[in-house]
Amino acid sequence: MNLRIPGPTPVPPQVRDALALPMINHRSPQFAAIQARIVENLKHFFQTQNDLLLFTCSGTGGMEACVVNTISPGDPVLAISVGVFGDRFADIAHAFGAHVNRLNFTWGQAADPEIIRAKLREHPNIRVVLVTHNETSTAITNPLREIARVVREESDALLVVDAISALGAIDLPVDDWGIDVALAGSQKSWMIPPGLVMLSVSARAWNVIAQARAPRFYFDFRKMRDAMAKGETPATPAVGLYFALDAALQMMKDEGRANIFARHARVAQHARHRAQSLGLELFADPAFASNTVTAINNPPGIDFKKWRKVLREEFNVVIAGGQKDLTDKIQRIGHLGWVTEADIDACLDAMDAARRQVEQVAYA
Amino acid sequence: MNLRIPGPTPVPPQVRDALALPMINHRSPQFAAIQARIVENLKHFFQTQNDLLLFTCSGTGGMEACVVNTISPGDPVLAISVGVFGDRFADIAHAFGAHVNRLNFTWGQAADPEIIRAKLREHPNIRVVLVTHNETSTAITNPLREIARVVREESDALLVVDAISALGAIDLPVDDWGIDVALAGSQKSWMIPPGLVMLSVSARAWNVIAQARAPRFYFDFRKMRDAMAKGETPATPAVGLYFALDAALQMMKDEGRANIFARHARVAQHARHRAQSLGLELFADPAFASNTVTAINNPPGIDFKKWRKVLREEFNVVIAGGQKDLTDKIQRIGHLGWVTEADIDACLDAMDAARRQVEQVAYA
Repeated sequence: MNLRIPGPTPVPPQVRDALALPMINHRSPQFAAIQARIVENLKHFFQTQNDLLLFTCSGTGGMEACVVNTISPGDPVLAISVGVFGDRFADIAHAFGAHVNRLNFTWGQAADPEIIRAKLREHPNIRVVLVTHNETSTAITNPLREIARVVREESDALLVVDAISALGAIDLPVDDWGIDVALAGSQKSWMIPPGLVMLSVSARAWNVIAQARAPRFYFDFRKMRDAMAKGETPATPAVGLYFALDAALQMMKDEGRANIFARHARVAQHARHRAQSLGLELFADPAFASNTVTAINNPPGIDFKKWRKVLREEFNVVIAGGQKDLTDKIQRIGHLGWVTEADIDACLDAMDAARRQVEQVAYA
Repeated sequence: MNLRIPGPTPVPPQVRDALALPMINHRSPQFAAIQARIVENLKHFFQTQNDLLLFTCSGTGGMEACVVNTISPGDPVLAISVGVFGDRFADIAHAFGAHVNRLNFTWGQAADPEIIRAKLREHPNIRVVLVTHNETSTAITNPLREIARVVREESDALLVVDAISALGAIDLPVDDWGIDVALAGSQKSWMIPPGLVMLSVSARAWNVIAQARAPRFYFDFRKMRDAMAKGETPATPAVGLYFALDAALQMMKDEGRANIFARHARVAQHARHRAQSLGLELFADPAFASNTVTAINNPPGIDFKKWRKVLREEFNVVIAGGQKDLTDKIQRIGHLGWVTEADIDACLDAMDAARRQVEQVAYA
């Protein structure tokens, strides 16, 4: 199967072998060694000296972890959204009692740093800024470097970044850009199954975390930091995913960080060009088109659900539809993790053939 | 390696093969079919018609899910504890703002239903009762049937049960006993790696959940129920563990529920007898000795850390030490999931040989 959704991504054979390794004790020197190696390698890909924590959960659980450790009920929070996952970050902060100022940009567009600047000046008491690096639902990569600069210039707020579909595939130098909390998800560029999140926590963030009063237990960063310092975890972690991540990070180191970023940029550009050459329109603003996912508009009049069904059942290619308001408007092609131009060619060729098949039936 | 800890438990070859299957889309007919089959089979092992939900997290995350869906800040909660995990349940309820009445029994003893009755009469406003079915830290199985009867006779409180190290190995007829929420963990009797929890929710519980005001998002039972009704999940689930659970449940169905319970009872009794025949003392009250884990007292004067180290490094057998106040007092042997008498013999023979080796060195 050519699994071309923006996560879960295909798992390479070496990693699948690691998943099938015999189980071990999670409180053992063997586990501690694996965890230490993973942390060291993740710091390399996060480009950070900050603390690196892992939690057993979905990406949304990681987003909740970021919120409950940094806010207190009533805290003014700025939630910048360019799509479904930006909205979700805001919803989580609201659920835990933050006073959420929502700054929404049109779907398909990136966040504008100067509008963020104006908003921060308007609300100088903002304590935490939540932002998405790469918005999976619209195939947009926000200008995080510029956003981070504006946040630092205009406020003392923590900058908390959902980089789930960016980190490991798109350049995100956490320390250089001053990201306080950066969140990644296992099933994206890391080429392993879903179930783990990885995140970095800055010294500035730890100061806020020490004072934050949102209720937390399972996702408590302090508990996790203290346990990891002893080579453990507070609760039984997804041990099999640690085996897998260890193997995947070795593959990633072998390829090299800069090479991985370059490959994602190259494959993404290839996907966009190839889609256009087949007469498909791109959805997202080309100036901020994502290197990990491409969204194309549904051709006018097509039975888009049937298109995806034929693609899946007759061509063995799986792409993702649009979410929420984009359900009937776009298709999304994932190209992160274990992916090359050839995978994209196979995907787009099949999309083209399936499209003609669906349209012929419609006009027959 | 003979992994004889009370979770994670050894993963059989069929299940390891399933873990290595290629990744799929979590929003697809294929995933929906797997999830539906898992739910149906889990209901059989939970002996329930209640709703069955799965969450991607550790067991502790599942405990938090049980708490945040059933309590409101300030709610009087009765937390019955006979060890580390009972205490943890109480701590989580406290963290989320419940007014926690802690009823602690001596470690190594079971909870006494009549003392619970007195406590419920003393506090007639209790809204939720938290209790551990099988306490992994002390190798005790609480008399849950009797406890459930007392709770029903004396109050309208919800009965929320951490059955993480019991369900699937020890008889727990959820509907017959009137358990409102029963929680299981993947890495125990289900023979798959850690990272998933499974839980049942009664109609009575849903009424309370609809009113409960503790903050929640990732662990929201309502979101999960609604998504699962459509064959989906609210966030990307640990898809690989679903493959594994599907395979493991097929193995369990092939063996048969009653046969599995009988095997666990037989293997546990074998473990206790064999340990005693080797001159080892049992820690837990024999009247409530667990069928999934056995605790033995450290022989007087032994260097217990060295004992476990020699066992691990020279005999390739891994057991668990004591937790918290029991750290220097006991060793624990897990016998749940994929286990037979032969595994216990190998473990105890090695423990005996390693003990003599450690004691000889000490006296040399």
